[in-house]
Amino acid sequence: MERKEIEVIKQQAEAQYKELQAKGLKLDMSRGKPAPDQLDLTLDMLTHCLDGECISENGTDCRNYGVLDGIKEAKDLCMPMLGVGEDEIIIGGNSSLQLMYDTITRAMLLGVLGGDKPWSKNEKVKFLCPAPGYDRHFAICQSLGIEMITVPYKADGPDMDIVEKLVAEDELIKGIWCVPMYSNPEGITYSDEVVKRFANLNPAAKDFRIFWDNAYCVHHLTDTPDTLLNLLDEAKKTGKENMVFMFTSTSKISFPGGGLAVIGASAANIEFIKSQMTYQTIGFDKLNQLRHARFFKDFDGIKAHMLKHREIIAPKFDIVLEALEKEIAPLDFGKWHKPNGGYFISFNGLAGTAKRTVALCKEAGVVLTGAGATYPYGIDPEDKNIRIAPTYPTTEELAMAMEVFCVAVKLAACEALLK
Amino acid sequence: MERKEIEVIKQQAEAQYKELQAKGLKLDMSRGKPAPDQLDLTLDMLTHCLDGECISENGTDCRNYGVLDGIKEAKDLCMPMLGVGEDEIIIGGNSSLQLMYDTITRAMLLGVLGGDKPWSKNEKVKFLCPAPGYDRHFAICQSLGIEMITVPYKADGPDMDIVEKLVAEDELIKGIWCVPMYSNPEGITYSDEVVKRFANLNPAAKDFRIFWDNAYCVHHLTDTPDTLLNLLDEAKKTGKENMVFMFTSTSKISFPGGGLAVIGASAANIEFIKSQMTYQTIGFDKLNQLRHARFFKDFDGIKAHMLKHREIIAPKFDIVLEALEKEIAPLDFGKWHKPNGGYFISFNGLAGTAKRTVALCKEAGVVLTGAGATYPYGIDPEDKNIRIAPTYPTTEELAMAMEVFCVAVKLAACEALLK
Repeated sequence: MERKEIEVIKQQAEAQYKELQAKGLKLDMSRGKPAPDQLDLTLDMLTHCLDGECISENGTDCRNYGVLDGIKEAKDLCMPMLGVGEDEIIIGGNSSLQLMYDTITRAMLLGVLGGDKPWSKNEKVKFLCPAPGYDRHFAICQSLGIEMITVPYKADGPDMDIVEKLVAEDELIKGIWCVPMYSNPEGITYSDEVVKRFANLNPAAKDFRIFWDNAYCVHHLTDTPDTLLNLLDEAKKTGKENMVFMFTSTSKISFPGGGLAVIGASAANIEFIKSQMTYQTIGFDKLNQLRHARFFKDFDGIKAHMLKHREIIAPKFDIVLEALEKEIAPLDFGKWHKPNGGYFISFNGLAGTAKRTVALCKEAGVVLTGAGATYPYGIDPEDKNIRIAPTYPTTEELAMAMEVFCVAVKLAACEALLK
Repeated sequence: MERKEIEVIKQQAEAQYKELQAKGLKLDMSRGKPAPDQLDLTLDMLTHCLDGECISENGTDCRNYGVLDGIKEAKDLCMPMLGVGEDEIIIGGNSSLQLMYDTITRAMLLGVLGGDKPWSKNEKVKFLCPAPGYDRHFAICQSLGIEMITVPYKADGPDMDIVEKLVAEDELIKGIWCVPMYSNPEGITYSDEVVKRFANLNPAAKDFRIFWDNAYCVHHLTDTPDTLLNLLDEAKKTGKENMVFMFTSTSKISFPGGGLAVIGASAANIEFIKSQMTYQTIGFDKLNQLRHARFFKDFDGIKAHMLKHREIIAPKFDIVLEALEKEIAPLDFGKWHKPNGGYFISFNGLAGTAKRTVALCKEAGVVLTGAGATYPYGIDPEDKNIRIAPTYPTTEELAMAMEVFCVAVKLAACEALLK
């Protein structure tokens, strides 16, 4: 593109930006939050679902103390989400983030199964962080002083050549963060080969763990969804099943504030986790477990329910993609791909434009996830990645927000090119 | 008592024990668990209490993400339980044990406000443990490798001469466990003087904390309940308000498995805790917070509700006390006192008889809290304390269980005296 041409685009964008700014918008696309009409889909759970009947199948009064690992019907409901058996699961509270955080603090203070000391007794603890990734994963590490090593993504998952090499040579590397299906924010699902290579890792650290956050395991957006190989099954084949911690939740199935969080792992890992967790709590909220089991009935119930979510959010993804296709693709000011599920579209602009784009959006009343948030320490080395979370706004708001976004991308790109 | 006399009592007890054993009882008095009819008192919370209306007073959709420290109406409900203000409270999940455990793990890994390093960076961490006390408090310490130092109880609380001396001279002592009202298991409420001495402590450790587990703050059993001075208020007078962490929950007000847990502390402490806690979770279950606020309405609602609990459980305490009075008092085989609230009666038998008594009960089908559980490391130095938890069994079952208990006490005492 010639300089002249860019200047023309910039002028047009500036004029359009001023118009949009004048509208005084106030839109939030910063987090992967379900919209209110999605939450209405499970509203019956809060009214008629218990109806005073609080006894579980096996006779447990779910109102009272006990049952650290969750009631059977909640396990039955959630086991297929992770593809694990009855002795390979714990149903937690309302937050898988909390289960992950607590798993790491236990590892830091007490150690994991097979480790010879708590992680924190090492001079340093390091984690591999495929990026762009989930900001709250990285924030856990940063808050606990765990050194993060960025690993780049390829089209089918993290660059496994790098992962294999690093874990094999550094025994201070104790973990890796993965969102293996419809990854946050890239929307990538790990290929069978990548999963198998994970199951075959040879970490120098005996107490290394893969944190497999399968948050979007049933969050499909198309009739031809991605499929993910079961890491625990693969790891059993290599005898490395204790290397795997899997997590998921119903936060984006039922209620973000009142769902069920889940850990899946080998039976030996689960026994070990329970032996540590028993000092933290007598048990999580079994009434909410019962509510979920009664409402969804079984995994087919969850799958059918997710089609209703898809009906609401797939059109929102389309609005984003169509806007980018129409406004940005012709100018080649960024790259993205259409995810088959999950909650995000990952936009990669020209180098050095992400922060400026986010700032321009903000000044026009559209809040996006902070630029850099998708990288360890909040530092995107090329300053190009922006996570777009299309689910919370209404379609009208979203269309407006994407107008702002596309104009901001153009402005930031022109400014960068004209520098 | 003459040897001959004891032998007669023993023979009678043995005969009675055999008869009771033949009944094949199966009763559990091991934990402070509410009975099902107590839980029925709040059943409406699970049916009509939300009725699909999930928006909080200030417009928050309680189904969605957010609000780390809890919704305003839940704070309003719980603030008077601890006597704290709006910026001095966090509403947690369903377990105050979890809040306490997490508070200690954060202190271990990250440190507390005003500390110069995480607790775990010291060569050792020690806690003072007034005993007999709550077994799960002690278990937290033991599981995290925190050394426990037993402090004896006096009639109005822990022996403060010892507490003051120890904390002043050892900066590795980072905390003390207190159940200041209707203490578990003694049923003692700390006197004003004891509370004031706590507020005036001069610990060598700048990062010392009082863990004030006010679990039974509204759990009265009489018309003339005990009263407890507000430790946070007292500590403000001495400028030591950051030394105080208070906890309570609605576990024995609404549902043990599905209540609200609460932290109360100085505004500065709360800000600090939130700045650490934000990495663990996006927020606790606000739907359950809303349920509680709607059901109880306000603190008066809680107080009125507790009268209904009292109606159910006070007669059970009477059954225990009457049995002890009738069977044990005349023989002087043990001591106890009548608590004005809480969940336990603490029985102190002859030295060296607690384990034997608990074992005899078990062999006759009555499960009690393990002897020794009320002491650090599970070791009761005199082997005499047994915690009686009268709430869970029906009155008929309880009467039967007390028959077994009293016979077991007699047998164990006679055996000890005849040795």
